[in-house]
Amino acid sequence: MFRKVLIANRGEIALRVINACKEMGIRTVAVYSEADRNSLHVKFADEAICIGPPKSSDSYLNIPAVISAAEIAGADAVHPGYGLLSENANFAEVCRASNIKFIGPRPEVTRMMGEKSTARQTMKDAGVPILPGSDGVLKDTDEALETAKKIKYPVILKAVAGGGGRGMRIVRTAEELPAMFAQASTEALNAFSNGELYMEKFIERPRHIEFQVLADEHGNVMSLGERECSIQRRHQKLIEEAPSLQVNPKLREKLGKTIEKSLKDIGYWNAGTIEFLMDEDGEIYFIEMNTRIQVEHCVTEMITGVDLVKAQLRIAAGEKLSDILPEKPAIVGHAIECRINAEHPEKFTPSPGKITAFNVPGGFGVRVDTAQYQEGVVPQYYDSMIAKLICHGKNREEAMNKMQRALSQFVVEGIFTTIPLHQRIFADEGFRAGDFDTKFMERFLEKEKECKAAAK
Amino acid sequence: MFRKVLIANRGEIALRVINACKEMGIRTVAVYSEADRNSLHVKFADEAICIGPPKSSDSYLNIPAVISAAEIAGADAVHPGYGLLSENANFAEVCRASNIKFIGPRPEVTRMMGEKSTARQTMKDAGVPILPGSDGVLKDTDEALETAKKIKYPVILKAVAGGGGRGMRIVRTAEELPAMFAQASTEALNAFSNGELYMEKFIERPRHIEFQVLADEHGNVMSLGERECSIQRRHQKLIEEAPSLQVNPKLREKLGKTIEKSLKDIGYWNAGTIEFLMDEDGEIYFIEMNTRIQVEHCVTEMITGVDLVKAQLRIAAGEKLSDILPEKPAIVGHAIECRINAEHPEKFTPSPGKITAFNVPGGFGVRVDTAQYQEGVVPQYYDSMIAKLICHGKNREEAMNKMQRALSQFVVEGIFTTIPLHQRIFADEGFRAGDFDTKFMERFLEKEKECKAAAK
Repeated sequence: MFRKVLIANRGEIALRVINACKEMGIRTVAVYSEADRNSLHVKFADEAICIGPPKSSDSYLNIPAVISAAEIAGADAVHPGYGLLSENANFAEVCRASNIKFIGPRPEVTRMMGEKSTARQTMKDAGVPILPGSDGVLKDTDEALETAKKIKYPVILKAVAGGGGRGMRIVRTAEELPAMFAQASTEALNAFSNGELYMEKFIERPRHIEFQVLADEHGNVMSLGERECSIQRRHQKLIEEAPSLQVNPKLREKLGKTIEKSLKDIGYWNAGTIEFLMDEDGEIYFIEMNTRIQVEHCVTEMITGVDLVKAQLRIAAGEKLSDILPEKPAIVGHAIECRINAEHPEKFTPSPGKITAFNVPGGFGVRVDTAQYQEGVVPQYYDSMIAKLICHGKNREEAMNKMQRALSQFVVEGIFTTIPLHQRIFADEGFRAGDFDTKFMERFLEKEKECKAAAK
Repeated sequence: MFRKVLIANRGEIALRVINACKEMGIRTVAVYSEADRNSLHVKFADEAICIGPPKSSDSYLNIPAVISAAEIAGADAVHPGYGLLSENANFAEVCRASNIKFIGPRPEVTRMMGEKSTARQTMKDAGVPILPGSDGVLKDTDEALETAKKIKYPVILKAVAGGGGRGMRIVRTAEELPAMFAQASTEALNAFSNGELYMEKFIERPRHIEFQVLADEHGNVMSLGERECSIQRRHQKLIEEAPSLQVNPKLREKLGKTIEKSLKDIGYWNAGTIEFLMDEDGEIYFIEMNTRIQVEHCVTEMITGVDLVKAQLRIAAGEKLSDILPEKPAIVGHAIECRINAEHPEKFTPSPGKITAFNVPGGFGVRVDTAQYQEGVVPQYYDSMIAKLICHGKNREEAMNKMQRALSQFVVEGIFTTIPLHQRIFADEGFRAGDFDTKFMERFLEKEKECKAAAK
């Protein structure tokens, strides 16, 4: 096992990794920017090295500074957490060149899965369902009609050179396709000087479902079931849970096996997440892979009992999955996570500043991951997430009730947080019924706005 | 289910019950003394009623005041927590007379199990092993020799009228018995004007092991395994864990069944704990029963997944155990609890006062039950326990490592706490090896004193 691990991250995930190391008897080195001098990840590490000014590009994203810190401290491994350098293949390569073990997959694999089209093809080849679409550019309306017939309506036409919605059309019937094809093509030509279009199946109300995997460096892969992460605002997840109401044991088993095979094929190792969209009929399509630990890994930990960060460390040290997890863990109960952000709960404006009161809820089935504390400061420079509140119950109902209880006892004063937003969501009938998709928050906030307007 | 529950307690256990009620949609009424005005159990209850001055006898133990509060608030049930009125059969009777459901066993049963000799006989009749001894007073040396031969040495002679160690002798061989019998009898006669002696088996280094049970009001009883509570100082438990290293599945199953039968026989219901001593040979003897939830119930919750307080509420509302727990829960992993007391960690003097800094550890497998917070005050009037830190791991080793990590992150400033004491215990090889008994702390503190003296 490693003697000393440097954690190339900040805040709650840095502390999460420090905790795993401490519990395994591994020494820890924190790195920090000048803005994070008083963070708990600095206080609770065995050593801490300042690597630069507040701006991430000058500190946490500064590869030479991070590597120097690792070398000065004599760390034999680096854990990148999530975000920042975690999916930077170049960083993983520099670690390798510096003889420091990067706790994550090989840089070649990270790079491969980072390119959307390669990842898509890789998964398709391995038998993982991907979002159906045209094979590249559509020649003409006829080919578009043919493709749409094959992949079924609704479909979406997109400009090959496009972006920002221009040259984009959602097509619901064959009748309207020819006209829309012409419009989109013209629009694309005008906007990008390129009228070429391609087609994908359009999912009206997709759910975001992702599978957690662990893979060792000896070719063994284990799927640990799925997480449901459809409660998002502007593609930022707000609430995650596991298991998903939409995934039955048969689908979990079948898709899990396919994923295991595909990752074995590409020589993937360490922790990873395969993200899918699920349509209204329960069909599921690969969208992308994250080659790192994720924010929401905790809900999987709560229902499987598997410490994913400890598993990452053991895998990186060369251990076999069969020693780490002799048996596939059973899924017990239901877990939900709320991301508590330092933001105004209605305007969503960032709210950095000093925390003047901080009471963290406790009790049975309640877990809090945070590096914040009373009298601490939330810097303005980073992601706004200041804590994760995770509740585990024997079923979804109990987990939700526990979350409502815990949210009501989570006191944060001095700054705004999203706690009141979470309370509103957990009081929503649709959310409680599990009746949601990735557009849920859009509708939810719209509805709230209307109610407020009506009340005036 | 109850509409509104009054919690006739304070601090962490009051908040524990409030949490269970909240998660079940039951309204809560806190009661508080003037000294607890700002406690979290008051803040987080739906209603709170002041029932008197700080002294427990004037508030928390004042039955008319508690009952009046319940009547004023319109509570249909009372949860007594532990300590205070929880084993007061008279209080349970007043509740019954006032048409308020007492969440606990019937007063008749509480009373019966509160009398040590009756409890002992009841358990003996049901086939639960009790500490062997003479049937009452020993006639003479011959009967003493005979009894000792039967129950095996070492034995202890005790004065029937005795107390404080007078008239008490530990006898290790038949040879020394006659002289010791004479000495003890004379000593007892001089001290209490009564020379009568009785005999019990003497356990040199007993372990304290207790079994948790749940029983419904329809005659169904379920044992939920044991807790090991040998780490005590002056009969006050400091650290509890579950399962016990000394209880194998066969013993757990067998003793559990005997206990279930015995409690069924006496018509016991709600939660309860059967306490045993275990000798060096692994023989186990009933000592007493606690007819309430216990401080250390959390470790059982962590390894079984059963919410014991919710179970108490459901049982009191008339539900059947088969609905609450359709199957006997499996034991998963290992849990340890540290009682964090507001005491000097070496002198054990109480340390009430204002908490100026309070950082509660979090993360995977860490649970904190507390009603304290930063800027809060620990009153001088009550039990010194201010928090329970519970860690769950896949085995004892992981749970201990987690506890060390969590203790190192539990910051309490402004008062003294036992956190440093716990850290010293968790660093002790004997403790880590599970090599301890109820005399462990005595030896541990003695050894520390010697080391300190030697260092001078």
